[in-house]
Amino acid sequence: MEEKSLRLGKLYGIGVGPGDPELITLKAIRILREVESIFAASSSSNEYSIALSIVDKHIGGRPVIGLPFPMTRDKEVLKRAWLENAQKVLGCLREGRDCAFITLGDPLTYSTFCHLMRTVKELEPTVEVVTVPGITSYHAAAAKLNYPIAEGDKGFYVVSGVNGGRHIKEALIKSDTVFVLKTYREFSNIKQVLEELQLLEDAVLVKKIGMEDEEIKRGVEDLSEDAKLPYLTLLVVKNSSA
Amino acid sequence: MEEKSLRLGKLYGIGVGPGDPELITLKAIRILREVESIFAASSSSNEYSIALSIVDKHIGGRPVIGLPFPMTRDKEVLKRAWLENAQKVLGCLREGRDCAFITLGDPLTYSTFCHLMRTVKELEPTVEVVTVPGITSYHAAAAKLNYPIAEGDKGFYVVSGVNGGRHIKEALIKSDTVFVLKTYREFSNIKQVLEELQLLEDAVLVKKIGMEDEEIKRGVEDLSEDAKLPYLTLLVVKNSSA
Repeated sequence: MEEKSLRLGKLYGIGVGPGDPELITLKAIRILREVESIFAASSSSNEYSIALSIVDKHIGGRPVIGLPFPMTRDKEVLKRAWLENAQKVLGCLREGRDCAFITLGDPLTYSTFCHLMRTVKELEPTVEVVTVPGITSYHAAAAKLNYPIAEGDKGFYVVSGVNGGRHIKEALIKSDTVFVLKTYREFSNIKQVLEELQLLEDAVLVKKIGMEDEEIKRGVEDLSEDAKLPYLTLLVVKNSSA
Repeated sequence: MEEKSLRLGKLYGIGVGPGDPELITLKAIRILREVESIFAASSSSNEYSIALSIVDKHIGGRPVIGLPFPMTRDKEVLKRAWLENAQKVLGCLREGRDCAFITLGDPLTYSTFCHLMRTVKELEPTVEVVTVPGITSYHAAAAKLNYPIAEGDKGFYVVSGVNGGRHIKEALIKSDTVFVLKTYREFSNIKQVLEELQLLEDAVLVKKIGMEDEEIKRGVEDLSEDAKLPYLTLLVVKNSSA
């Protein structure tokens, strides 16, 4: 009886950039052309369709397999969904196929690729993972504003807005540049902190950077605390007194 | 008498990525092919030659004009050098030529492009500046290590090693991921702080990421405090107790 020993496929995490289809790297494009299957998290229909349209511009016609996972904070439900998704990808890898998971921005910066990589590795520790970095939304926002991120002996912080203003306050005391990603849900609380620090006029709100409906707003003092902000919103805050 | 009114050229700041020639974006390549003059800071011969070799791989044969500036901390000398360099670039822009300044990594993250842009704008405020973001060394390092930069409600800090360990300590108390760029000169002091925080074994030293002579070292406990580190060295520090 013959035994077929297949090599395990490689898992690639591919950053496709912040939204502008030109802000993808040559490496990302080459690998997407080489792999046998392409996956993406399909739970956020907005992100999914943008990532898809970027990939389609460069390797048009290739199918992208959506990995659904429920939008819930229930850890057990999430864990089960990620296990199922990881098993789906692992199925392909075990057939010897190289697989790519695409992500807007960078695969290791607030991306579901971190979950996928971890779960696949738990199921099959020998899987080789190769990550291809992507341009992040905050680099694209700074570029759009021609706004220095860091110079000389300074540093900068990237914080999640999910916690509201608390971390932002601590960060702003020590640094002159803070990027607040995921601003949308806790904007009211974040605005209060910016007001307290007298930074309302210095903050820049960037919505959907690099996309067709990109919006940039300097100063958030006149923005209602319960303003409806899109998911892909970030704040750039400069504290010139730091 | 006829008067020739030339449009002022655009100034592009182009990130060519961390060193791997494939980690450049399509946008960077397109613009480098379109512009009439390409400049680069030639003071750090290491960075200059890497940036040049990347550009040469994609738009081979095009000359790149070096902008020298002295390696000194004397502010007056530096200011004069940057004024001269900015005037050189502005000379081209005033002839209606679009000019690009190339930089390793990202043009707004610890890059001399920030100086150049500022000085050109001071001399000629109407110059249009367009910045094209690039993949940074710390994103490339995280990708190489398959190391999540930020997940969920966490944040991360990027600090300059120029100040030694002081900022790193403050950053590590609040965050679980800190990237220390420019590690080389103050390594002794940084090592002391990592020792104090019991993080020597968790630190990862990354030299010349994405280049042919890249080196990655997990743990710095056995590295001499006066180790000679190359200019392009960074530290990734994880504080799992944060």
